[in-house]
Amino acid sequence: MPTYRAPIRDFQFALKEWLNIEQYSGKVSGFEDLSFMDAVLEEGAKYCEEVLFPLNQLGDEQGLKHVKGDDGFNKVILPDGWKEAYDQYVANGWGSFACDTAYGGQGLPNVLNTPFIEMVCSSNLSFGLLPGLTHGAYSALHHFGSDLQKAKYLGKMSTGEWSGVMCLTEPQAGTDLGLITTRAEPQSDGSYNITGTKIFISYGEHEAVPNIVHLILARLPDAPAGVKGISLFVASKYNVDDNGEMGTRNNIDCGSIEHKMGIHASPTCVMNYDNAKAWLVGEPHKGLKAMFTMMNEARILVGIQGLGIGQVSYQNALAYAKERLQGRALNGAVFPDKKADPITVHPDVRRMLLTMRSFAEGGRILALWIALNVDLEQRLEDGDAKQEAEDFVDLMTPIVKAYLTEGGTTMASLAVQTHGGYGFIKEYGVEQYMRDCKITEIYEGTNGVQALDLVGRKMPQATGRLLRRFFHPAQQFVDENKDNEALSEFTKPFYQGLKSLRQASLWIAQKALANKEEAGAASVDYLRMFSLVAIGYIWAKSAKIAVEKLAQGTDEKEFYETKMATAKFFLNKILPEHFSLLAKITAGAKYLEMPDVKVA
Amino acid sequence: MPTYRAPIRDFQFALKEWLNIEQYSGKVSGFEDLSFMDAVLEEGAKYCEEVLFPLNQLGDEQGLKHVKGDDGFNKVILPDGWKEAYDQYVANGWGSFACDTAYGGQGLPNVLNTPFIEMVCSSNLSFGLLPGLTHGAYSALHHFGSDLQKAKYLGKMSTGEWSGVMCLTEPQAGTDLGLITTRAEPQSDGSYNITGTKIFISYGEHEAVPNIVHLILARLPDAPAGVKGISLFVASKYNVDDNGEMGTRNNIDCGSIEHKMGIHASPTCVMNYDNAKAWLVGEPHKGLKAMFTMMNEARILVGIQGLGIGQVSYQNALAYAKERLQGRALNGAVFPDKKADPITVHPDVRRMLLTMRSFAEGGRILALWIALNVDLEQRLEDGDAKQEAEDFVDLMTPIVKAYLTEGGTTMASLAVQTHGGYGFIKEYGVEQYMRDCKITEIYEGTNGVQALDLVGRKMPQATGRLLRRFFHPAQQFVDENKDNEALSEFTKPFYQGLKSLRQASLWIAQKALANKEEAGAASVDYLRMFSLVAIGYIWAKSAKIAVEKLAQGTDEKEFYETKMATAKFFLNKILPEHFSLLAKITAGAKYLEMPDVKVA
Repeated sequence: MPTYRAPIRDFQFALKEWLNIEQYSGKVSGFEDLSFMDAVLEEGAKYCEEVLFPLNQLGDEQGLKHVKGDDGFNKVILPDGWKEAYDQYVANGWGSFACDTAYGGQGLPNVLNTPFIEMVCSSNLSFGLLPGLTHGAYSALHHFGSDLQKAKYLGKMSTGEWSGVMCLTEPQAGTDLGLITTRAEPQSDGSYNITGTKIFISYGEHEAVPNIVHLILARLPDAPAGVKGISLFVASKYNVDDNGEMGTRNNIDCGSIEHKMGIHASPTCVMNYDNAKAWLVGEPHKGLKAMFTMMNEARILVGIQGLGIGQVSYQNALAYAKERLQGRALNGAVFPDKKADPITVHPDVRRMLLTMRSFAEGGRILALWIALNVDLEQRLEDGDAKQEAEDFVDLMTPIVKAYLTEGGTTMASLAVQTHGGYGFIKEYGVEQYMRDCKITEIYEGTNGVQALDLVGRKMPQATGRLLRRFFHPAQQFVDENKDNEALSEFTKPFYQGLKSLRQASLWIAQKALANKEEAGAASVDYLRMFSLVAIGYIWAKSAKIAVEKLAQGTDEKEFYETKMATAKFFLNKILPEHFSLLAKITAGAKYLEMPDVKVA
Repeated sequence: MPTYRAPIRDFQFALKEWLNIEQYSGKVSGFEDLSFMDAVLEEGAKYCEEVLFPLNQLGDEQGLKHVKGDDGFNKVILPDGWKEAYDQYVANGWGSFACDTAYGGQGLPNVLNTPFIEMVCSSNLSFGLLPGLTHGAYSALHHFGSDLQKAKYLGKMSTGEWSGVMCLTEPQAGTDLGLITTRAEPQSDGSYNITGTKIFISYGEHEAVPNIVHLILARLPDAPAGVKGISLFVASKYNVDDNGEMGTRNNIDCGSIEHKMGIHASPTCVMNYDNAKAWLVGEPHKGLKAMFTMMNEARILVGIQGLGIGQVSYQNALAYAKERLQGRALNGAVFPDKKADPITVHPDVRRMLLTMRSFAEGGRILALWIALNVDLEQRLEDGDAKQEAEDFVDLMTPIVKAYLTEGGTTMASLAVQTHGGYGFIKEYGVEQYMRDCKITEIYEGTNGVQALDLVGRKMPQATGRLLRRFFHPAQQFVDENKDNEALSEFTKPFYQGLKSLRQASLWIAQKALANKEEAGAASVDYLRMFSLVAIGYIWAKSAKIAVEKLAQGTDEKEFYETKMATAKFFLNKILPEHFSLLAKITAGAKYLEMPDVKVA
C-alpha cells in the first residue's frame, strides 16, 4: 500500500542550485566530470523503487530466522529476496561508488553517493544497514589498517562482496566503552585470540555474502583500565590468508538475535568470540580513536537514515491526504461536486504536511552539505579550505545525527497521524517507519550523547573555531540580504533565530567554564536550537534562489513557488521554537533536581 | 522485565491535598463516606499489578486469532488468561463502581474510579479497552435509551457481564460521520434490520462474555443526507427479550481483525451487519447527539489511557536509569567505588526523567480534576455550580484527550530513549508502550479534531464563558500568591504562561471572526499552550501545598521536596514553550500554503 518515488528534482535543486557543486569542477579531484549526475540519480531511483522498496514490508512481516547450521555454527536466514537484491546492489557497483580506486573503488564523490544512500534508507532501512555498516568498516580499515590488511580485505569490502561489521557494545558497556571486557591474547604467529561477547551487532551474521569482516574492540593482557586500554582488531567469519583467499571457519558464532520494535529484517546479533583468530589494527591501546573515525562516518549515515524515513513518511502522508475525502473546508466546500473535500483543506493537516516537507527538503540539503564537506576534507590539499571543511564536518556531525533521526521518528509519527486510524494498520506501511526509525535516535551514540559532543567537545574546541563554519556564512547571508525587501519574510525570522543561537552559545560557553553540568543541562535544547537555525539558514537561502528564479522567469513556476511557501512555513511556524529553547537553556542546571535520586 | 507499581501516594496527594475532595462530603451525593478511599486504591493496585500487568507483554506477543465458529459465525480468540482476568474484574465489582444503583451499580463517584482506570491503562491498555468501551455504551443507553431498553441491557452492562461497543466508523466515514451508509429498515414488530459494515470496532467480537451490546449509527430510509440523517440503534450478538433473557443469535459477524502497530491484544474488528435485528435509541435522525455524549466520556477515558502509559513509561525509565552504570558525572565520579556512575548523574537523563515525572504527576491531577467535575455536573442540583462544572468538563475534554495522549506517546518514546539500545528490544517492555499509545492520539477524534473542538466550539461558546472556568481560578491563584516570595520561582513563570494564553485566546477570538481558517491554523498550537498552562497551574498549586507542608513540618520531607523540584522543573524547563507557541499562533494561516495542492 505505501509508495515511494525518489525525489530526483529535489536532489538536483540541492546539488546544483543550493550547493552548486559544479563550482568544484576542475578544482577538486573526483569532481572533474559531473555530467553523469542525473543518470546516477535515475539509476539509483530505479533500483530503490523497484528492487528495495517492494521488499520493505515483506521484510518487516517475515523477519529473520536463527537456526543451527550443518557446520555447528548458528546461521541467520534473511527474508525472501534479500540476497538477490543485495547481489544486484553489488553487481551494479553501488558499494564501490565512493571507495578508493586503489582497492577496486570508483573514487566518486561522497556528495554524489549521498542521494543514493537516502533513497536506500527511504526504501528499505533494514536492508540499508548492511552496505552502510560495511562501508564504515571499510573506512576504518582504510584509515588504520596495515598495507597487508588493506590488501587482504578492502577489495572485497569495497564492492560489497564481503560485508563488514563494527563490534563495540557489550551488555555492560554501551556508551561507556571503557567497561569493555572482551580479551585479546597474543599468539606466536602474530595474531590474537579474541574471547568475549558483543551485543547489538547488526548483520553480525547472515548468508547474503560468503564472508563477514569483524572490527572488534578488545583488551590486550597488559591493557590499562578504561578507554585507554582498548585496541582494535580485525577478524573474519572465514579466515583470510595473505593472498586474500578464504580459508578455515573462525570461531565466531551468533548466539542469538534480538526481537525488536522495528528494523525486523536487520539481524541484531549477540556475537560470541571463542578464541577467534584476529589481527591488531593500528597501535595497541589506540582502538578507540580508530573506532571514532568509523563512528563519525556512521553518525552521518544514521542521520541520513532518519532523513530517508522522514522523506518516505512525508510522501505517503501527502498522497493519502490528497485522496482522503472527509468533511468540508472551514470556510465552505472547496470541491462541492465531491461527497467531501480532501483533508488537505484543513489548515492543521497542511501544518503536518508542511512540517514533514520542510524537514525532508531542508534536512536533505543539510545532509548533502556535510557530505560535500567530507569530500572537501578528504580531497583538498592541506590548507585553510581543507581545515574549514574538516571543522564543518566535526561541528555538524552531531547535529546531522541527532536532528535528522529525531526528526525522522517525528515525521513518521505525523504520517501515522495524517492517516488517522489507517495509519495504525500495518498494511498502510507508515507505522513501520515510526518503529524502524526509533533506533536511529539511539545507536551510534544516543542523541543525548550527540548533544554532549556538541557542547562539550565541538563548541569549546580551539576556542570556538568550529562554530565559525556556521556563523560566518549565516551572518554573511544576513548582511548581504537584509535590505532586500523581497526576502524580508525569510531573513527577519532567520536573523532572530541566529541571534538566539548566538546568545545561547555565549551563555553556555561562559557557564560551562565554572560548571560542566551547565553545558550538560543545556545540551539537548542547544543542539535542537542549532539544528533549527541551520535549517532556517538552508530555507532562507533556498527562498532566495526561488525568488531569483521566479524573477528571471522559469517553466517550473510551481516548483519554486512551493519552495518559497515551504521556506515561509519553516521560518515562521517552526523556527520560532528558538524563543522557548533560549528560555529553557538559560534557565540552567538548577532546575534538573531530583531530591529522591543521589546525583552528586 | 518491565515493572509496575501503582502510584498510590500520588493518587492520595491529588485527591486529598490538591482537589481536597473531602470538602464535598455531606454536600454532594456519593461523597458522603470517603473513608474507603485508601482501601479502594490498594485493592485496585493489587488487581492491576498482580493480574493485569503480567498479561500485558504476553498479550502483545500472542495477539489474537480470528477463526470460524461451529455456528458459522467468526470468533475472536483472546490471549491466554484474558477471560479469567476479566471474570475477576466483574466479580470484584470494578465495572459497576460508578454505575447507577438503579441498574446494579454502586453509584460511587467517578473521581474515585478514575485512579483505578489509570492503573488499568498502565497495566494493560489492550485489556482496558474492553471495560472502557462497555462503560461508554452503558452511558449512552443510560442517557438516551427507553425504560425498556435500560431494563433489558443496563444491569448486565454495568457489572460487565455483557460488554458493549460503539459502532460509528465506516471505511469512507471516519471523522466525517455524515458519510455513513449503513441502513436501518423498519420492521413490523417495531425493530429495525441493520445492514452495513463498520470498521475499527474494538472488542466488536470476543469470547470473554456471553453477549455483546452494539450501539450502531445508521440511516433510516427517509433520512436526510449528512449528519442530520443519522440515527442510533441498539443490537446485541444474541437477541435479548423483554425480560432480559438471551435468545437467538443475531446476524452480526466479525469479518476480520486488523493487524496493527500496537494494542495487539485488543481486537479491532470489521463488523458486518446483515439484516441484524436492532432497536432505535432515542429519536430518529438524532443519533449523532447521543453518540457525542458517549464520545465525550470516551475522550476523557482515552486521555487517561495516555496518562497511564506515561506513568508506566516513567516508572520503568526511572528504575532502569537508577540501575544502569555507565560513564561518570561531568564534574567527576559520584560513586567512585562503583565501576561507573548510574546514568541519573547526567543532567540530560534527569531532564528526560523529570519530563516524564512532571507529565505523569501533573497529568494525573488534570485527569482527576475533570473527573471530579463530571461528578459535580452529574450530582449537583441545578444551579451555578452545576453549570460551572459542566462548562469545565466541556472546556477541558479536548485538552485532556489530546494533551495526555500525545504526552503518553512522547513519554514512552523518552522511556525507550532512556533505556538506550535495550529500549528497542521487546523484552524490556517500553517499546510496547510507544506502539500501544500511538492510537490514543487518533481514536475518538484525532488530536487535530480535538483542537478544532477547542477553538471552534468550546472557545466561542456563550461568548467565551467556558474559558472562565480555567482563567478564573488561575488568576485568583496568581492574585493570592504573587507577593509570596517563597513561591516566586513558581508563580512568575506560571504568570508569564497565563499571559501568553490570554494573548493567544484574544488573537484567535478576533481573527476567527473574519476567517475560520485562522482558528484552524492556530488550533493545535493553542491546545498545546492551553494544556501546558493548565499543567503549569497544577504544578504551581502543588508547589504551594508542598511549601506549606514543609513549613509545618512533615515526616514525608523527601516527597514534598520532590514535588517542589518537579514543579520548578516543569515551570522553568517545559512551560516556557508558550513563548514559541505564541509566536507560531500569531504568525497566522498565511504560512500554511501549499501552492501544489488546491485548498480553496
